[in-house]
Amino acid sequence: MSSRFRHAALVGKYQARGIQGPLEEIAQFLVRQGLDVSLERDTALNTGITDYNALTHAEMGRECDIAIVVGGDGTMLGSARQLAQFGLPLVGINQGRLGFITDVPIGHFADALAPMIAGDYEEERRTMLEGGVWRDERLIFDGFGVNDVVVSRGPTSSMIELKVTIGDEFVGNFRADGLIVASPTGSTAYALSAGGPILHPGIAAWVMAPIAPHDLSNRPIVLPDVGRISIEVAQGRDASVNFDMQGMASLLPGDRITVARSSHQVRFLHPLGWSYYATLRRKLHWNTGV
Amino acid sequence: MSSRFRHAALVGKYQARGIQGPLEEIAQFLVRQGLDVSLERDTALNTGITDYNALTHAEMGRECDIAIVVGGDGTMLGSARQLAQFGLPLVGINQGRLGFITDVPIGHFADALAPMIAGDYEEERRTMLEGGVWRDERLIFDGFGVNDVVVSRGPTSSMIELKVTIGDEFVGNFRADGLIVASPTGSTAYALSAGGPILHPGIAAWVMAPIAPHDLSNRPIVLPDVGRISIEVAQGRDASVNFDMQGMASLLPGDRITVARSSHQVRFLHPLGWSYYATLRRKLHWNTGV
Amino acid sequence: MSSRFRHAALVGKYQARGIQGPLEEIAQFLVRQGLDVSLERDTALNTGITDYNALTHAEMGRECDIAIVVGGDGTMLGSARQLAQFGLPLVGINQGRLGFITDVPIGHFADALAPMIAGDYEEERRTMLEGGVWRDERLIFDGFGVNDVVVSRGPTSSMIELKVTIGDEFVGNFRADGLIVASPTGSTAYALSAGGPILHPGIAAWVMAPIAPHDLSNRPIVLPDVGRISIEVAQGRDASVNFDMQGMASLLPGDRITVARSSHQVRFLHPLGWSYYATLRRKLHWNTGV
Amino acid sequence: MSSRFRHAALVGKYQARGIQGPLEEIAQFLVRQGLDVSLERDTALNTGITDYNALTHAEMGRECDIAIVVGGDGTMLGSARQLAQFGLPLVGINQGRLGFITDVPIGHFADALAPMIAGDYEEERRTMLEGGVWRDERLIFDGFGVNDVVVSRGPTSSMIELKVTIGDEFVGNFRADGLIVASPTGSTAYALSAGGPILHPGIAAWVMAPIAPHDLSNRPIVLPDVGRISIEVAQGRDASVNFDMQGMASLLPGDRITVARSSHQVRFLHPLGWSYYATLRRKLHWNTGV
Repeated sequence: MSSRFRHAALVGKYQARGIQGPLEEIAQFLVRQGLDVSLERDTALNTGITDYNALTHAEMGRECDIAIVVGGDGTMLGSARQLAQFGLPLVGINQGRLGFITDVPIGHFADALAPMIAGDYEEERRTMLEGGVWRDERLIFDGFGVNDVVVSRGPTSSMIELKVTIGDEFVGNFRADGLIVASPTGSTAYALSAGGPILHPGIAAWVMAPIAPHDLSNRPIVLPDVGRISIEVAQGRDASVNFDMQGMASLLPGDRITVARSSHQVRFLHPLGWSYYATLRRKLHWNTGV
Repeated sequence: MSSRFRHAALVGKYQARGIQGPLEEIAQFLVRQGLDVSLERDTALNTGITDYNALTHAEMGRECDIAIVVGGDGTMLGSARQLAQFGLPLVGINQGRLGFITDVPIGHFADALAPMIAGDYEEERRTMLEGGVWRDERLIFDGFGVNDVVVSRGPTSSMIELKVTIGDEFVGNFRADGLIVASPTGSTAYALSAGGPILHPGIAAWVMAPIAPHDLSNRPIVLPDVGRISIEVAQGRDASVNFDMQGMASLLPGDRITVARSSHQVRFLHPLGWSYYATLRRKLHWNTGV
Repeated sequence: MSSRFRHAALVGKYQARGIQGPLEEIAQFLVRQGLDVSLERDTALNTGITDYNALTHAEMGRECDIAIVVGGDGTMLGSARQLAQFGLPLVGINQGRLGFITDVPIGHFADALAPMIAGDYEEERRTMLEGGVWRDERLIFDGFGVNDVVVSRGPTSSMIELKVTIGDEFVGNFRADGLIVASPTGSTAYALSAGGPILHPGIAAWVMAPIAPHDLSNRPIVLPDVGRISIEVAQGRDASVNFDMQGMASLLPGDRITVARSSHQVRFLHPLGWSYYATLRRKLHWNTGV
Repeated sequence: MSSRFRHAALVGKYQARGIQGPLEEIAQFLVRQGLDVSLERDTALNTGITDYNALTHAEMGRECDIAIVVGGDGTMLGSARQLAQFGLPLVGINQGRLGFITDVPIGHFADALAPMIAGDYEEERRTMLEGGVWRDERLIFDGFGVNDVVVSRGPTSSMIELKVTIGDEFVGNFRADGLIVASPTGSTAYALSAGGPILHPGIAAWVMAPIAPHDLSNRPIVLPDVGRISIEVAQGRDASVNFDMQGMASLLPGDRITVARSSHQVRFLHPLGWSYYATLRRKLHWNTGV
């Protein structure tokens, strides 16, 4: 099932100070391993590294067979969103603290990448959410997310009321600061802060978690990821919706946000021996006691 | 897919005052509908109703094609545990408040049951947990549950430490009052009180929720229901384990509790138009505000 | 300690449909009880009731010795904020569902008010918060609240980072959707939704509760209501602050919100036999089960 | 207000391996500082240190003017419970991780203790709980606690129902795994795991926190520490009560546990510059992110 890679695309968190050196080191390493190497265009532009081809995401999708992302979970999420449609697998190299999805520490990139490039890795697929905003039966926004779709109250409202339907079934009217629909990947992000559970990536489900719900019995609920969730703004000025932090504001009462599973999946590659639970233990400081 | 029923087994919460009258009414109604009617043996013994055959659960499994349970969620759970192995479907008639799984109000039993008996119903299957307790590689207890498996600290311990493994993978060492592994059915019972999410019955998953965890980042986690969960008592005197409230006490450090999906499933029959979300709204007082 | 009242100010939730009739009934009742009756100016203007003097809050403070507020908790809070500085005591008459602080049901207003007017009542004092927003050592906003002071992330930020100091002591840097500092009165409002505890009104304390905190061990903390809490916007665009929902947006990094106990107190009058815990039980549906 | 000390009592967590060496070092240091030194009797017996007088807690209370406790928070709590009645102040030296109330790291004991012995320290007083168990109007158990009073369900019950009254006022009937009444000191212990808030030690209050409450709106409540809390076992076999982990099991329905503020207080001495919030930040890993 695994295969040797030929052409790597390198993506970097170009806003981070001092990223240029590590990116060049990794690029040179990849060349020494016999790979063609290209740079994601914005990474090339912003770091001033000119020794490699600069490619758009679409070009990367066409020409490359692996993307190596250097940064944090945010950079990785952004790349995953862009590249999922092309089926390009991603490896995350973490600059700084290890992340939930960037699991190769930059200090050991060579030891970790060498076997992966040769075909020894574990592949994991993560579901994505996609959806849109409907006003008067017209689609006025669409987006997709690796982590979550978040509907939030406007800055001058004390609350938003949302009417949730799944397929044809009415679920409930929820009054809260907002509502998060998160994938398993997103369950350890914002939804966790809102009191949601951790969803193992092997679960075909979303977690729907209210933010500061008015009704104390309004608890997070784990829903099948088949079927279409519809979230209608029943009350509240100036609500907003975000798909992985990209979104639109100024929703009107009556606007409907729909969320469904995307046909695309994110492909993450991990070093052999990678463990989801080890990541949780490390990130959540399990066993460190208080 | 639906079919007409021929022989109903009637089960009652025989400890409840005044159950005899309603049971007799329902039995007579079933007879008038053309069904053979038998009574579950303990129900017959304790109510003194002698007009119908009294059957053990095994006999019910062999001879009957539907079980009609009158009582609350507890009675329904107990019957479901006994009857799952025989594939006998259950209808729950609620005496008193509506339950999560007893959805026919006793006041309208005739209107609800008539079409169901004729074959107009919705069938829903619920997963069950099964497992055992292992000491020195010997199985010293086994059980199964519709709701949950609960490992609890002993009455004189301030805490229990549990080492959790799934398949070959180490998950974590958790210090808490206890740990709940709940099915979707059990997610609205004890696990909800411990801060766990609601799991839609269509999710192939368990929720593992700690009770009063020592480590504040020890959050409920939703796990695939394939694979075997192993919970080892790492520390703590006199811990106990319960499968749907049936269990054993006096666990020793080193004892291991295993939990896996049972090959049996519970079959619940609902009136047409039944809605899982309507049940949640009613039971959790959603939309009633505070 | 109790005394007979002479001049009542009547305040109504004038936006509510059908409020005019009840207001007139109550006014006539008060006249029959021998009181002078005035109407709060906006209430008079908006309901078109012209049979009584219309007074501003300041005039009410000078001339009246009791305010009778008809509406919900929101109306009561608004009046309490305006009238606290004049020491005018308030009675809350609830139109619709009973509230936390409007405890006389409109259907029984006469039975409840007659003895209160005659001097048979329980008086309860509630602390208020006051504070301001400081930019470059200049006070750019000030306000006060009966319920809470809320600092919230801006609509386009995923998070806000707040540096909290009490007096000279650094408390912590908190990353969250926001931070609530609530009085005991406010502890059953927004802070409760954010996971805060209920504070008995007799506690000389605030609860500081984070909203969707990034750090899972960032729990609500109950602080003495002496000393000055300073909340500095360490990071985050377009944050806002609200004192009982009145506030300012577009905070800048470096802005500091200060919160301290106001020298004013709210005076609530309750019928004899009023019970704080009975209100909790009724509003929180304690004992109703799930 | 501060004064020089003359006679130190030394208490050690004698079960801990390797405690003898540090205890002897501290004792010798205290002697060099000009103090008389005695050892708590069990500490002397179990460590075999015979160079110093061995005293009971009562003798320590009579003869000593400071207690120096070497161990963890548990050892400190135990000593505080014994010594509060004598008004003897305590300093906690932590062997291992810093605790909430043992704030002198053993590696720096000399630097920290020298100025404290000379009179340069901060004193802090913590309230204690005391109470009893009443059966048929007879007191059948009494105890006191620095941290908390915990009423728990029996090992074979799925739940306990507790009727709570404060003074003459009925608070509520609560169904849960148990109920914790914690002091500010205890608010960072078991009550925090159960979802309770942190109470600053300057708050004259208890937190009452349910453990896994059946009713989702049964939230932690902060109560004035004046008045007597009565907790009656309304339902549940074999419940138990613990005052700081010392208690009695086999409670019967109808038994009443009473809790009130003790007339004794614990006196903790801290090095100058000690900060309560710094302790919270360190123990709760605030600012470490996830």
